[in-house]
Order: sequence, then structure tokens, then C-alpha cells
Amino acid sequence: MSPTFDMALIQRGARLRRSPYFEATLRAGCRSYTVYNHMFLPTRYDDLQAEYEKLLTGVTVWDVSVERQVEITGPDAFEFTNLLTPRDLSRCAVGQGKYVLITAEDGGIVNDPVLLRLGENHFWLALADSDVLLWAKGVALNSGLDVELCEPDVSPMQVQGPKSKEVISRLFGDEVSGLRYYWFADTDLDGIPVVVTRTGWSGEVGYEIYLRDGSRGMELWDRVMEAGRDLGICPTGPSDIRRIEAGILNYGIDMTLENNPYEVGLGWQVDHDQEGDFIGREALARIAAEGPARLLAGVEIAGARLDLNMTRWPVHRDGSEIGFVTSAVYSPRLDGNIGYAMVPAAFGELGTRLGVATPDGERDATVVRKPFVDPGKQIPKS
Amino acid sequence: MSPTFDMALIQRGARLRRSPYFEATLRAGCRSYTVYNHMFLPTRYDDLQAEYEKLLTGVTVWDVSVERQVEITGPDAFEFTNLLTPRDLSRCAVGQGKYVLITAEDGGIVNDPVLLRLGENHFWLALADSDVLLWAKGVALNSGLDVELCEPDVSPMQVQGPKSKEVISRLFGDEVSGLRYYWFADTDLDGIPVVVTRTGWSGEVGYEIYLRDGSRGMELWDRVMEAGRDLGICPTGPSDIRRIEAGILNYGIDMTLENNPYEVGLGWQVDHDQEGDFIGREALARIAAEGPARLLAGVEIAGARLDLNMTRWPVHRDGSEIGFVTSAVYSPRLDGNIGYAMVPAAFGELGTRLGVATPDGERDATVVRKPFVDPGKQIPKS
Repeated sequence: MSPTFDMALIQRGARLRRSPYFEATLRAGCRSYTVYNHMFLPTRYDDLQAEYEKLLTGVTVWDVSVERQVEITGPDAFEFTNLLTPRDLSRCAVGQGKYVLITAEDGGIVNDPVLLRLGENHFWLALADSDVLLWAKGVALNSGLDVELCEPDVSPMQVQGPKSKEVISRLFGDEVSGLRYYWFADTDLDGIPVVVTRTGWSGEVGYEIYLRDGSRGMELWDRVMEAGRDLGICPTGPSDIRRIEAGILNYGIDMTLENNPYEVGLGWQVDHDQEGDFIGREALARIAAEGPARLLAGVEIAGARLDLNMTRWPVHRDGSEIGFVTSAVYSPRLDGNIGYAMVPAAFGELGTRLGVATPDGERDATVVRKPFVDPGKQIPKS
Repeated sequence: MSPTFDMALIQRGARLRRSPYFEATLRAGCRSYTVYNHMFLPTRYDDLQAEYEKLLTGVTVWDVSVERQVEITGPDAFEFTNLLTPRDLSRCAVGQGKYVLITAEDGGIVNDPVLLRLGENHFWLALADSDVLLWAKGVALNSGLDVELCEPDVSPMQVQGPKSKEVISRLFGDEVSGLRYYWFADTDLDGIPVVVTRTGWSGEVGYEIYLRDGSRGMELWDRVMEAGRDLGICPTGPSDIRRIEAGILNYGIDMTLENNPYEVGLGWQVDHDQEGDFIGREALARIAAEGPARLLAGVEIAGARLDLNMTRWPVHRDGSEIGFVTSAVYSPRLDGNIGYAMVPAAFGELGTRLGVATPDGERDATVVRKPFVDPGKQIPKS
């Protein structure tokens, strides 16, 4: 056996949880983990550019069990869930998913989950890194609505890349692999209960398999790997290079509770004219009318290849610090450094010249359109 | 310069935050970090037993900036904060702190912060690892109470061990070092604004310095180190050995949202007879009357020295799995393995014989009284 990652570098005691696929990720030689929703998230088995190439040309498997679910059921589940998000869920059919924002009363972003509607009054929110179960329980308390809230035994894995369709077809048939973007199938793999969605965090063709029985994680993992063996399937971390190219945001850095949807280019999520009420309605109407004070701008950063930033990089203009880079990385196919900068709205205009304090020194930067690739393709609007 | 910890082993992008003391912890040779409240927590500079010895005999400094604060202000701050916790805060004076639980409607434990009352209507909750700001914002939404909730720029460090009193006296004078248990002083160190509390997670004499200006973290760190140099002051992680000896619980493993205060020996926190209302009152009254179904029992585990558990260890009785060990470690001064096991109440009786599946195989275990040391001294009741 090859030496495995020393978990003592990142954990202390048994407080943080392990995924149903954890042993498989160790066995596959995962070289780094981070922590997300109080669980370990495998981030890297190879170098980032190698993993990016595999995603662009083949099929990759990501253990994203950290996308914990909040399950909402009960007679008022529809009304309650609709209250949590500015999107109008009356346009979400059973069997359909939506990329949604969860907003606070001031319009601040609590989370940006993928929502699945499993029944008229049955929803899952596949979470980014914040305790939405606590938020939802707090909201429910005096809401007068009859709902049940829990974290079910559900653990997603992403299967992403151009060859993912073939893998999903082999495992679940053409009806599942042919799902429309953001729709899902409630199915099983020889008795392993799963939900398969046509979603992902890559901008490539991709699916997520939501395992509904944590005790069968290793079995599912092995079946997926076996189905893609001749296609060169391999485990990787989520690709920051590819998701930045696609204009996809990472909750916790590109947007936080301090930001509203308009600041980060997600104003299209707010359905002002819907019948149902939602938390943040008043604040978001005001921000929509006035325009946001800050913007998350796309930026190109000049100079030599930059590694993914590990801290916020200060952004300068005319000698003053006016904002910060949230995420930035070198894109091999664009042969340039791309990323996002949170700046006052006045400096978010295309073509604006900025300075960025990188670990290698000050660099010139320019505000550019995002997404950086596939200009016809927007960040998930379904 | 000595080689420093490779943060790429544990982080990916700039999503997770660094403490104001982060560079100092790297410089001091921190060898592992974990993640807590979306921030990095230094866990170890030396081996665990060496750090334990330093805590028992000298003075240690822990970067616990991860204890993020929820600040509650506004005209209804007292009533709102009292609603969040089963403790009767009418018995908490301005200038006083309390160890409190935050409970959900079903009595489940949301968090176990140290609460500080900075004014009649001004509170901080120094959090364990869960997003209580989201919980509190959700609760506030339809509460009809006029409060402001935020995460202020406050970053605690713990100064723990028998020689901590001398260090605090040198830095802040005898009035501060002589504070009664759980009281605090709002003060400064030559202009560095801090709150100093007589609290800690060690069972030893100890203090926490809550830095109120993150830009001055390195300055504060250096001043504290300088003040204790001749006393052998050194940075360490929190000591799991010492806190388990003292019967102190770690939120996220020894207790979670799935547990109520009675299960984990914290029923004394629930002031049923108070005038104010609190979330979970009805459920907790019922559980108090019926008795909890499970108990977090103290256990001694036979056999050779055990390292701190990295997963829950199954607990057996008569061939069946009946529960799990949450935390366990070898105590040098007791020369035995001690810990906690969550078991059905019927198996929580002192003297009950159990089996524990450790990584080294099945071991005999016995239910014993906790705390394991200082039997006269209880877990913090202030």
C-alpha cells in the first residue's frame, strides 16, 4: 500500500466528519483535504493543472459529501422553502432542481445551494459551507408554518467531464444520462438508493450522484470507478481553474453573508414579481433600484503564471486600496491569470485598470467580462 | 527561517480565514491546523503529551481566534439573548460571563459559548464550531424584538496554566489577574483594545484575551510572549488530554444538535423556574421529567496507551453495538485511557462493563465518574 495522507495534519479528535467515500479517497492517494460543513473535502490527488486537463478531456469523480442537505418536508414545505429563496419556486416542478440563493433580511447571501424538488412538499438544499439547517430552524421558529427540517443521510459525488455522460449511461441508462440541465432522477444502482442530477460545479458536462445510504459509499464508489475504467476515470478535487473560467462563484470567498446577489452578478436570481413572499424582499428591491455599491468584477492579472490565491489580495487604484481579489488562478488554455475582484461599483466597468498585490509583488490588472470561457454559456441559470 | 507548515495540505483558495495571530503561529513552528468556524485553528507545535506537561506546569498560549463572537445589541438585547439560552441571564451582571448552552426548540444543543455581558443590552457569545450568527438571525426574524446581530472584530487567545496569573498580572495588573472565575475586564495594553476574561478550556488557572482590533494581532502576540519569556511561556494547541481529565466537552463530537443538555450532563444549565422565556423550554421540561434516553458516560478503557481517537469508536455490550466513544485519550498522570461514551441511559450506571472497538482491537471499558481529576472541581459552572 502507498503511504496515505496523515489526517493528524488537519484533524484533532473526532469532531470533523468523514464521508462515506473517505476510505476510497485515501486509498486513491488523495494528497490534501480541506474542511467544509464540518466534514473533510478531498481537494487534490495530482497537481491542479493535471486535474484540470483530466476534467476537460475525460471524466473525473469528486467526493463532495460535504454538500450536506437540508431536507424540508411537511404540509407547508413549499411555502417555507419559497420563503428562504428569492427565486420563484412555483416555476420548479417536482423532479426539477434549481440553483438558488438563500438570503437574509438585509439581502445578504446565507448560502447558494442546488435545490431539488423531490415532491410537492419535499425539498433538498445541497449546501455550500454554512449551517443552513440552523438558519432554517431559526426562521421556522416563529413562522407559523408547519415544516420538518433535518439533515438526511445523503452524500453527493460529482461525475464531471465530457465522458461523464457515457459513465452515467452505463450505470443508469440513457434516460438518466439524457436528463435536461438541472433535472434529476430518483433511482438506484442494483439496490443502492441514489438521486442522479444533471448538475455540477465545473462548466463541463456533468452529473451528481446523491447517495441515500451512507453505509454503501464504498460500494457506489467502486461501481462508478469500474464503469469508467476504460475511459480513464479518476478521482480529483473540484477544479478551481475550470470553475473560475466558467464564472462560477465559491461561497465563503467570492460571496459571503456580507454580499447581496446584485454585487456578485446574481441579481437574476431575484424574482421580484412573484406571488410568494421571501426573506430579504424589501432590501433586495431597494438594492435593485439603487444599484449595488460594490461589484465582483472579472479581472485579468498581467505577468507570469499565478498559483491559486490562498488569501485575499489587495486591489489598488491610484495608490489607494479599494478592494480585494477573492479568487484568481492561471488558466492554461487562456494562457493568462484570471479571477474576481470585489471593488466599488465605479471601478467595476469593463476596461478599468487596477493594481493587485500578489505574493510575487504588485501586478497590473484589467476588469474584463466573465465568464472567461464559453461566452455564450452563462453560469448555471437553471 | 525554519520550514513552515504547508497550508496547501489543508486549504484551497482563500475561503477559510486566517487569525490575526496566524503569521506568529507559523513562525512559532505550528505543525498542524484544523478548521473551526471557517477559520484555521493551530492544534499542535509539539507532541500532545509535551504540550500537556507545559500546560500543567507552566503557561501556554493558544490562538483561539476561531472562537468567533456573535454580538447582540439593541433595546431588546437582554430579552433576546435570554431567549437563546436556558440559563437565567437575570443572574448575569454587566462585567460577568457565563458558560451557556444555545438550544433549539427540541432542546438540541446549537452551541456552547462563553457569554460575556458587556452592557445591560450588549452581549458577546464566544462560539464553538457552528454558525450561531445564522441561527440568531433566523430566530430574530419574526421575534418582534429589536436587536442588532453581527460578528465583531474580536479574536480571543487563551493564556492557560499555573503561571498564567503572573503573565496577566505583568501585562494588565493585579486587578485583572485577580478577576473572579468568569468575570472580565474591558481594558487595553498600551492602546491595544482587549477584554480579559478569567476563563479557559483547560481546567487549569487561565485567562482569555479578546483582541478587539485584528490589525494588532502580531503586536499583542509578541507582547504576551515577551511578558512570559522568563516563565517559559510557549504556544500550544488546546489540550485534549487536560480537558478530558477535567470533564470538559468538545462541541461537534461530545455533544451536537442531536443531543440535549440532560444527555451530556449539562442539565444544571436549564433554569426551568426563570421568569423569561427560552427556546426549547417545553421540550427540556419534558426531558427533565422523563429522564434522558442516552447518557454521555465517563469511561476508562483498559490496555495500552491510546492516542486521541480520530473517529467515533463503537461501544459494545453483550455482543451488540449500543453506542460510541466520542473522545478518548491516554492520561499520563492517571496512567490510563479515559474518555466519554454516548450510551443508552441504562448503560450509563457507574461500574457498567462495556467493550470498545479501538483501532488496536476490542478493549474492555468501565463506566466511571467524571471529571477524572479534581473530583471536587466540576466542569465550569460559572
